[in-house]
Amino acid sequence: MGKKIVVIGGVACGPKAACRVKRLDPAAEVVLLEKGEEISYGACGLPFYLEGLVPDVKELTTTPVGVVRDVNFFKAVKGVDILLNTEAISIDRKKKQVKTKNTKDGTEGAISYDKLVLATGSSPVRPPIPGIDLDGIHCLKTLNDGVRLKNAMEQAPGKNAVVIGAGLIGMECLEPLLKAGFSVHVVEKLPFVLPALLDEEMAVPLMKHLQSKGVQLHCGDGVVRFEGDGRVKKVVTEKSEIDADLVLLAIGFRPNTKLAQDAGLDVGPMGIRVDAHLRTSDPDIYAGGDCVESYSLVTGKPAYVPMGSTANKHGRIIGNNLAGWNSTFSGVCGTGVCNILGFNVARTGITERDAKNEGLEVLTSLCPAPDKPHYMKDAKLIHLKMVAERYSGRLLGVQILGPGEVLSRVDTAAAILKARGTVDDVFETDMAYAPPYSPALDNLIVAANVIQNKRDGLIRAYSPAQVKEKLEKREDFIFLDVRTPKELEQMRLPYENVVHIPLGMVRKKAEELPKDKEIVCLCKISLRGYEAAKILEAEGFHKDKIWLLDGGLVAWPYEKIVNM
Amino acid sequence: MGKKIVVIGGVACGPKAACRVKRLDPAAEVVLLEKGEEISYGACGLPFYLEGLVPDVKELTTTPVGVVRDVNFFKAVKGVDILLNTEAISIDRKKKQVKTKNTKDGTEGAISYDKLVLATGSSPVRPPIPGIDLDGIHCLKTLNDGVRLKNAMEQAPGKNAVVIGAGLIGMECLEPLLKAGFSVHVVEKLPFVLPALLDEEMAVPLMKHLQSKGVQLHCGDGVVRFEGDGRVKKVVTEKSEIDADLVLLAIGFRPNTKLAQDAGLDVGPMGIRVDAHLRTSDPDIYAGGDCVESYSLVTGKPAYVPMGSTANKHGRIIGNNLAGWNSTFSGVCGTGVCNILGFNVARTGITERDAKNEGLEVLTSLCPAPDKPHYMKDAKLIHLKMVAERYSGRLLGVQILGPGEVLSRVDTAAAILKARGTVDDVFETDMAYAPPYSPALDNLIVAANVIQNKRDGLIRAYSPAQVKEKLEKREDFIFLDVRTPKELEQMRLPYENVVHIPLGMVRKKAEELPKDKEIVCLCKISLRGYEAAKILEAEGFHKDKIWLLDGGLVAWPYEKIVNM
Repeated sequence: MGKKIVVIGGVACGPKAACRVKRLDPAAEVVLLEKGEEISYGACGLPFYLEGLVPDVKELTTTPVGVVRDVNFFKAVKGVDILLNTEAISIDRKKKQVKTKNTKDGTEGAISYDKLVLATGSSPVRPPIPGIDLDGIHCLKTLNDGVRLKNAMEQAPGKNAVVIGAGLIGMECLEPLLKAGFSVHVVEKLPFVLPALLDEEMAVPLMKHLQSKGVQLHCGDGVVRFEGDGRVKKVVTEKSEIDADLVLLAIGFRPNTKLAQDAGLDVGPMGIRVDAHLRTSDPDIYAGGDCVESYSLVTGKPAYVPMGSTANKHGRIIGNNLAGWNSTFSGVCGTGVCNILGFNVARTGITERDAKNEGLEVLTSLCPAPDKPHYMKDAKLIHLKMVAERYSGRLLGVQILGPGEVLSRVDTAAAILKARGTVDDVFETDMAYAPPYSPALDNLIVAANVIQNKRDGLIRAYSPAQVKEKLEKREDFIFLDVRTPKELEQMRLPYENVVHIPLGMVRKKAEELPKDKEIVCLCKISLRGYEAAKILEAEGFHKDKIWLLDGGLVAWPYEKIVNM
Repeated sequence: MGKKIVVIGGVACGPKAACRVKRLDPAAEVVLLEKGEEISYGACGLPFYLEGLVPDVKELTTTPVGVVRDVNFFKAVKGVDILLNTEAISIDRKKKQVKTKNTKDGTEGAISYDKLVLATGSSPVRPPIPGIDLDGIHCLKTLNDGVRLKNAMEQAPGKNAVVIGAGLIGMECLEPLLKAGFSVHVVEKLPFVLPALLDEEMAVPLMKHLQSKGVQLHCGDGVVRFEGDGRVKKVVTEKSEIDADLVLLAIGFRPNTKLAQDAGLDVGPMGIRVDAHLRTSDPDIYAGGDCVESYSLVTGKPAYVPMGSTANKHGRIIGNNLAGWNSTFSGVCGTGVCNILGFNVARTGITERDAKNEGLEVLTSLCPAPDKPHYMKDAKLIHLKMVAERYSGRLLGVQILGPGEVLSRVDTAAAILKARGTVDDVFETDMAYAPPYSPALDNLIVAANVIQNKRDGLIRAYSPAQVKEKLEKREDFIFLDVRTPKELEQMRLPYENVVHIPLGMVRKKAEELPKDKEIVCLCKISLRGYEAAKILEAEGFHKDKIWLLDGGLVAWPYEKIVNM
């Protein structure tokens, strides 16, 4: 017999590592311990099970041809032994032995290893809020969680649901809850939704979309306690009281590190510490998936980014190394995508806020535009924000959202981040172009062009928030709105300092504008605003006085007068 | 007044270069010469105008807010002077002067320049086939072409259309022709469709799709002559005679280089030669867009890849350099995408055939699979072929097609090609994952894994064509089909040397298989085939005897028995 490999954890990274090493080294004996009864399931499919799109939760545990990935499957096909209901309770690193306990009958045992893999996953955060153990308060992580929540949705005494936390899981569960007839409230501690993924200005269009679908947002508000009589009836927040027949607790996940910590392995606040080989501080123990601290390719620092995709990659790398190879994993970019009530939201890299917290100086662009040429009737809006290092132009991150296509843009950006590319690399990427798919210059490329223009001193721009601040400080400046009269009728800014000159007239009428005041140029998305700014400069206006409103009226999240 | 810049050509690169330099250097005098009356239009939108999706051809010449980009627009907004109906007939490089002729009244003139830009575009190839000048034979390049073709479609004496050439334009026009009620034949000299974009095995699923939509394909056939009486009535090919009321000639495009050639500039068969600054052999003359020879990032050699996206990028780079900057352009990957009767087809980099013609040794993978997790009801098939350098693993190209999503995969691959990444980089790219969009391990990543496995000696695979050859040579080998009995009922190979053992039984029944014969393992897409191959190796079968059928039954383009 070959070496003995023990894997702890049966969802994504664990089975992948176990199967991979068995393929590379058939002589190895591979045993996987799983404390529950569910293995190798697609947890990310749970919101679609809740929604009814996946009729049977078992579909999340089958192969594409409908074969259940159970203990027999792993034995027959993969040659891997799986022990269910077997919790690893401690690791004796000297003896190279894992102590186990059967979660059904309590019997204890021990299993020795030559190499050990920790794939212990993560658990939903459950803060010690009064009343948190009341019935009707659910988390969503495992298949059992999913089944329980679906039953609860069907049997709730009323139709008031409260989602605590506006992260990915909370957002993905809005559609199932609304479809099931619930009136849905979302309580989020931070002032906007998806705070880990987005900058505030990018969250605004999503929040408007959620509100238009009837979701009641309580951002910048925290839960004080849950009230009820055995079962939850009310969520009391800092600012209000919300009736609740069902609560989804979706505040995030924490890595399961107790086993590693008790064994004296190096563990940080973001998970078990591993090197690029996914080896822990003990060279005979590997760890991967949701339980480890990841490395951010973008910041060069540790990050906690639990993702099913990364867990699978970790499993492959660990499998390679268990077989004696020397494989490394570069790290992650924090890429994420989700569909929220028909609105696509994607992010890769870091936000402007993240970058500033890292002490980086950045340039950004804010580009709302159709996702394909305007003459295509099915063109849909996407908002795109790009963040790059001011000095080097290195791409740091992209946020994209809207009813239009986001996947190709976020994946392209992720590939450029992996190569540590700059905005010049974005511009030069030979992205596919055809009218049913994308404009001749893709939205991503236009966003890179804007940052190039800023870097090259061609334009200076204010973000919406900066302009709002100028308004509040009653600074003396004017808005130059260069849209057509027809566009003006449909939507306009409600301020007294707005001057309207259609772009085609700006050259002629430039002299009517004051040369001693700041002029903030804008149009619908600020492409024409940029033209106007360049015209004014060419007409002798001082560069310091000419500014652009980033993202134009579409990205302006504050007051607008709209006549539809 | 600043320097005088003359731009020849008014479609994409020309206007972009003119406007860009004017923004960077407002003192420059910029004059654009256009021999026709159409400027700055979206030629790529013509198939959608033909189809009726774009009701008025004028929409292809307007800005997103409906402003026509005409001479007045360019003057007022961009500060660029445009001379319509003004053909550049020769360049006197010593005098730095362009001789012009008014295409309406024939008057000649001359315009001097400090810097000149050639953006003369391309023209449809019109080979000297007998009868090619008959009425009813159309090309599609300009807006006028589009209007003429649309009228011809409406007024054709009958409903037989013949498309000559199965390239991008020909393929994009199938939908408008079918929707207009035409019976459509396609004549293609090469043995399969989209031969410049795809390898033959990848063209097969597309050809089946076209045939299922009623398109009659004549591949490996050439046009001998057009017959008719003033107007085309018949297309006579090497193999047949096809009734024709309308012919679309879509054999490709040739760069318009005569002006450059006559002026003594360096011109190759693929266009005007330029350096990375898009400067011709005369340092005062730049050239870009469809009239120049591009540089392939992948082969490191010249390439002719006329694309609207590249033309726009060229315009920006040329504009920068005209303003005195020092900007370069890296080159292209040959990325393309199109929608053909609901089938998405995308390609970037080079095909296996291209690579072999370049003398490169390659590894390939053939991965047909759903574009998202199988439990999502709207998952759709995509075929993906990846080509990489055998030794280095450097990514060389990707072809992706099918009813499913292709854009994100092709763009991601293009970004990796730009960075000269390897299949390891593909694997490590942090692509976005969520079930409505993509599987946990994206199709692109799985394709990279297959090439890694081949490179690392874990598996050896035959392409469908290689196995077909073995069959034809009556070699003594067996197919091991490891699908479920139910799958076998639905579809199977019609050969006598097929052994069926479901994957779960392979370990048990391995001894029933011969150890002295080659065994070609397969399943639906060959993921389970790979498992089976590894099981047989683990059970003591010699590595040399165990092979995989690349792409499995889904990618098998030859005989299959299908019971639906």
